Amino acid sequence: MAALDRGRSAARIERDIETLAGPDYTLSDEAIRRYAYTGVYRNTLDYFTRALRELEFEVYEDPVGTLVARNRPRGEPVFGIGSHCDSNRNGGKYDGTMGVVTALEVCRLNRELGLDLPLQLISFLEEEGSGFGQMLLGSRIMAQRVREEELRETFRAIDDGRSFWEHAAEAGYEPARWRECIHVLDGLTGWIEMHIEQARVLQDTGNRIGIVTAIAGYVHADVLVYGRADHAGATPMDFRLDPGPVVAECILELERLARAAGNGTVGTVGEIEVHPSLINAIPERIRCSLDVRGVDEEAFRGVARDIAAFAVEAAARRGLTAEYRQRQTLPATPLDTRIVDALEQAAHATGEPCMLMASGAAHDTMCVADHVPSAMVFVPCKEGISHSPHEEADPADAALAAEIILNAIRSLTSPA
Amino acid sequence: MAALDRGRSAARIERDIETLAGPDYTLSDEAIRRYAYTGVYRNTLDYFTRALRELEFEVYEDPVGTLVARNRPRGEPVFGIGSHCDSNRNGGKYDGTMGVVTALEVCRLNRELGLDLPLQLISFLEEEGSGFGQMLLGSRIMAQRVREEELRETFRAIDDGRSFWEHAAEAGYEPARWRECIHVLDGLTGWIEMHIEQARVLQDTGNRIGIVTAIAGYVHADVLVYGRADHAGATPMDFRLDPGPVVAECILELERLARAAGNGTVGTVGEIEVHPSLINAIPERIRCSLDVRGVDEEAFRGVARDIAAFAVEAAARRGLTAEYRQRQTLPATPLDTRIVDALEQAAHATGEPCMLMASGAAHDTMCVADHVPSAMVFVPCKEGISHSPHEEADPADAALAAEIILNAIRSLTSPA
Repeated sequence: MAALDRGRSAARIERDIETLAGPDYTLSDEAIRRYAYTGVYRNTLDYFTRALRELEFEVYEDPVGTLVARNRPRGEPVFGIGSHCDSNRNGGKYDGTMGVVTALEVCRLNRELGLDLPLQLISFLEEEGSGFGQMLLGSRIMAQRVREEELRETFRAIDDGRSFWEHAAEAGYEPARWRECIHVLDGLTGWIEMHIEQARVLQDTGNRIGIVTAIAGYVHADVLVYGRADHAGATPMDFRLDPGPVVAECILELERLARAAGNGTVGTVGEIEVHPSLINAIPERIRCSLDVRGVDEEAFRGVARDIAAFAVEAAARRGLTAEYRQRQTLPATPLDTRIVDALEQAAHATGEPCMLMASGAAHDTMCVADHVPSAMVFVPCKEGISHSPHEEADPADAALAAEIILNAIRSLTSPA
Repeated sequence: MAALDRGRSAARIERDIETLAGPDYTLSDEAIRRYAYTGVYRNTLDYFTRALRELEFEVYEDPVGTLVARNRPRGEPVFGIGSHCDSNRNGGKYDGTMGVVTALEVCRLNRELGLDLPLQLISFLEEEGSGFGQMLLGSRIMAQRVREEELRETFRAIDDGRSFWEHAAEAGYEPARWRECIHVLDGLTGWIEMHIEQARVLQDTGNRIGIVTAIAGYVHADVLVYGRADHAGATPMDFRLDPGPVVAECILELERLARAAGNGTVGTVGEIEVHPSLINAIPERIRCSLDVRGVDEEAFRGVARDIAAFAVEAAARRGLTAEYRQRQTLPATPLDTRIVDALEQAAHATGEPCMLMASGAAHDTMCVADHVPSAMVFVPCKEGISHSPHEEADPADAALAAEIILNAIRSLTSPA
C-alpha cells in the first residue's frame, strides 16, 4: 500500500471545495445553487478541466455535457472514479462536489506517487434535478434510461420552462447524439464513487468510512383513506367514519413492518394531507405518502405490499375504504463484491474505523452498475444534514477516502 | 294538548324557508350566504317583521340589530323562542333559519288556536360568524361576553376589514349602546330554541325529535411533536426521531380516551400539518389539532388533560419532545330540567319517536341559558350534513317541533 500525506490531500481537497463555493460557482450567495448549462456550472467544469489537464489527462465532454477525463488513450481499459458537481437548489458544498474533488485527488496522488494507474474521471450532470426537475438525469441519459421524447419535450427547465433539448443545444452540446453518451463507459473495468453519506450512521457509530455494498431500491406510493366529514362536536364516537385512526394505524404498522423486515429496510410517511382540515370537522379523507426502501428486494417490496393490504383491512374494520396508489419504483442495486472487498482491505490497512453499509439514497452509481462492476465509498456528514447550506463534511475524511480508493484500484488493476 | 293541523304548519314553514332561499335573501346563487348588515340580511329581518306584525306582535331591533318581537307590552313576563337567521358563507336553507321560522309558526298557532300565550321571538345575529369571523357574536354581545374594544377594533369584517362598530353604525344601529342588548332577556320566563341537529344521530336512530338536555363545552388545542428531519432512505429505523408514530399514537389514544370517558364525550383530530411535507424526508415536526367536547365537564376536560400528558410521554418514549397548546375553551351548558320535562311530555303526547340528547355543537342558547331557564329542540338533518348547500331538513319535522314547543310553553305558563 502506498503511504500518503493525508494532511496535504485534505488541504488540497478543502481548497478545491472552498473555491467551488465561491461566487463564480454558485447562483446564490446563501447556498450552493449550481445546475447544468448555467455559467456557474460551466465555470465548475472548466475548473476540473484545468486541474486534470495539468495532470496530463485528456478531457472532453460528451454530447450532453458529462465531463470525462482519462490518462490513457480511448480504447484502453481504465478504472472509473467520480460523482456529480451540480447541487441542490438550496444546497451545500459537499453533496456531489466532494466526490469529484476526491476523484481529482486520486488522480493527483496517482501521478505524484508515480503509480500510473489507468484512470478515468467522470462528473455526471443533473444528479439533483435542479435544472430540469429530473433526478439522476445525466447518468440516466448515459444508461439510456430516458426516451428521446422526454429530452426533446417533457423535461423542461424549472427556471424558464424551455426544454432540456433547447438548453443543451444552446450551451453548445449535441443532444441529438445523446445515445452516444453510453460510450463514456467504454473500457471501464470498474467504477468507484465517493459521496457524503447524507445520514448520520457513520457519525453516530464513530466510523470515518462507509463502504457501500448495495444501493436501496424504493417504492413511492400514497395511501388514501376515505371516511365521512361530520361535525366534530355533534357526532358521537360510535357514529363516525373518521379516517384519522385508520391512518394512525397505518403509520404504526409501517414502522412495525419495516423493522420486522430487517436488512436495513426503512419505511417513512413524509406527507399527510387532511381534507377539509378544520379543527371542528371530522376529516372526509386523508392521504399519506409512503417511502419504502431497502437493498433486499423481497423485504422492501413485501413491506409495501403488506402496508397496502393493511390499509384496506384497517379501513374496512372501521367501515371505511382505503386505496393504495403507487407513484414509482426502482429496484435495489447490489454493488460488486470484488471491488467492495478491495475497498475493505484498503480501508482496514489505514487502521481507521470503517463499516460496510447500504446506501438508502439514490446515486449515479445506480446507472453505472448495470454496465460496469461498481462500488461506493461514503464519508460522514455532520448530523446527517445534506441538501442544505448547513451541510458539513471533513476534508480529512475525503483525503482518507482518496487513499483507500487509490489503493483499492491499485490492487484491482495490478496483475494477479 | 292542542290538536293541530301539522300539514298546514309544514306547508307554511316550507313556504317561509323556500322564500328565504330566494335571490333577495342570499348573496350567492349557489348557497345561502347571509350575514349581518348586508341587504339580504335586512330583507330577512323585514320578512319576519312583516309576518310578526300581521300577528300583532310589537317588533323592534336592539342596538346592534337583534330582532325582538313580543305579544305583550314590555315589562310583562313572556316565554322566549327563536334562533338565528344568518348563515354560513356556503350554507344551507335550514341552519338557524328553520328555528326562527318554526318560532314564527308557534306564534301563528298561538293566535289561530286562541291560546294567547305570552311569547317573545328573538333572532340573534352573527351566530355563524360569516360577517366578522366571530361565532355566536350576537348572543355574546347580548350576554356581555365581549369587550367594547373588540367591537370597536378587533372584530373586523371578513369582506372589507372594517370594524364591527363601523358596520353596525352604517347600518343604522347604535353600537355604543351595546350593553343594553342584555335587556332583550327582560321578562323572559324561559327560552326554547329549535335547530337542525347537524349530525346524524336522529336520522340513524329513527327519531324525529331530539330534546336537548345540555350543550357540550369544548377544548380546542394543538399538539406539536418535534422530531428531526432526516433523509427517508438513508436513515435506518433505529436512527430516526420521527414525529409520525408519536402523532399516530396520540390519534389512537384520543379515540380510546374519548370512548372511555363516556357521557357523550368526543375527541377529534381535524387538522394534521407536517413539516416539511416531502415524500422522501422524515418530518421535522407535526402539528395536530384537538377538538374535545362533552356535557360532562370532568369527563371532557379529563380527556384533554390526559391526551396532553400522553403526547409528552409518547414523544419522550421515542426520544422526541411534544407540546400541548390550548387555543380556547368553553364550559358545558346544562339546560333547564323543568323545560326539558315539559318538552318531553309534549313530545310523548304526539306519539312520534323522540329522544333526549346532548348538543355537541355550540348554539346561541349557551349565552341565553346563563340568564334564563332554557332548552333546545332538534330535528333531523339528512345525513347529518350542515354548513353546506346540500343541507336538508323536513318541514314536517319542524311542524311537529312547533306543536311540541307550543304545548310545552302552554304547560309551563299555565297556572299550576
